[in-house]
Amino acid sequence: MADDRNDSGTVGSGSQQEKSDARARSWENPTRKGEIALAFDPGERTPDAGLVYIGHAKTPWVGPGECPRNIRQARERAEAEAGLGFSLQIDEPYRPGLADYRPGQVVFVLMWMDGARRDLIVQAPKHRERPAGVFSLRSPVRPNPIGLSLVSILEVEQERGIIVVDALDCLDGTPIIDLKPWTQTADIPAAR
Amino acid sequence: MADDRNDSGTVGSGSQQEKSDARARSWENPTRKGEIALAFDPGERTPDAGLVYIGHAKTPWVGPGECPRNIRQARERAEAEAGLGFSLQIDEPYRPGLADYRPGQVVFVLMWMDGARRDLIVQAPKHRERPAGVFSLRSPVRPNPIGLSLVSILEVEQERGIIVVDALDCLDGTPIIDLKPWTQTADIPAAR
Repeated sequence: MADDRNDSGTVGSGSQQEKSDARARSWENPTRKGEIALAFDPGERTPDAGLVYIGHAKTPWVGPGECPRNIRQARERAEAEAGLGFSLQIDEPYRPGLADYRPGQVVFVLMWMDGARRDLIVQAPKHRERPAGVFSLRSPVRPNPIGLSLVSILEVEQERGIIVVDALDCLDGTPIIDLKPWTQTADIPAAR
Repeated sequence: MADDRNDSGTVGSGSQQEKSDARARSWENPTRKGEIALAFDPGERTPDAGLVYIGHAKTPWVGPGECPRNIRQARERAEAEAGLGFSLQIDEPYRPGLADYRPGQVVFVLMWMDGARRDLIVQAPKHRERPAGVFSLRSPVRPNPIGLSLVSILEVEQERGIIVVDALDCLDGTPIIDLKPWTQTADIPAAR
């Protein structure tokens, strides 16, 4: 199920500079057979709430065709190709929030996939036999294009706001909106 | 680390009705000893991107004092007290996105903790010995107050947009912003 990326177009909200950066990360995503689009574009609606970007991702993936489909594939690429670097670049005001980060810790990175189309509620990824509801996919194409990836911290430079991680499965420059510690008691399915 | 909730105040953006609802979920959160606040309130900034609410949570927790600190505690309460019900109520346009949901599946619920203060970058939760950087805490108090909880699906009524789940650790009425399938290959820390 982690292989459920789709291809996507259109641009999110934000400042002019951010819109321009987002355009560089957007790509064509014509509606495929079996796909269902909303009657509206969530990105064109008056927002219910507003996000601030706390930083951005630095990755080797500069075009949509280069980006691995998920974090497992990104990690495999990182292991296979020497010299691929991945880091989170956190803006100055938010750096005190990194105080307790150490190499070896595992964190969820929440990204804003600002190049992704937001109106496809049923999608037909190429690798799937049948179309699927968006909430069963990890596609960046979703009403709120939030990406969620679990990564390991390799190095921390708190003062410069740089967190080197083992892999990232988003395009270079993708905005970061949150970081959360992974916890065994909360983030593994409960026994039944 | 999952026990890292803080208490919080102030209200997010959104419509008047949503602001009123959010006010009911907000609470006082004076800055404690050792805590560090940003020089600005991210909730008062011009947003970099806009979220739409796709639904809301239905939980037994109606006042901040009642809400468990994390999903593990919520699950323990649900097991101890008969009759506690938890569900995700998804708005009509987004219901086709639930097409593949079945009982037994495990999903991440992303919530917008709209009652939470957004400017505390270092926090001193009561149960911690020392203040900690916000990105090492699962506190709803954070620059973008996104909550992330892993739950099991018990029942699905797609047409009515109701997903009954085993537990939720947010206040009744909390906006839902995304649902994602949990996947073993992506959401368990990589072996090293």
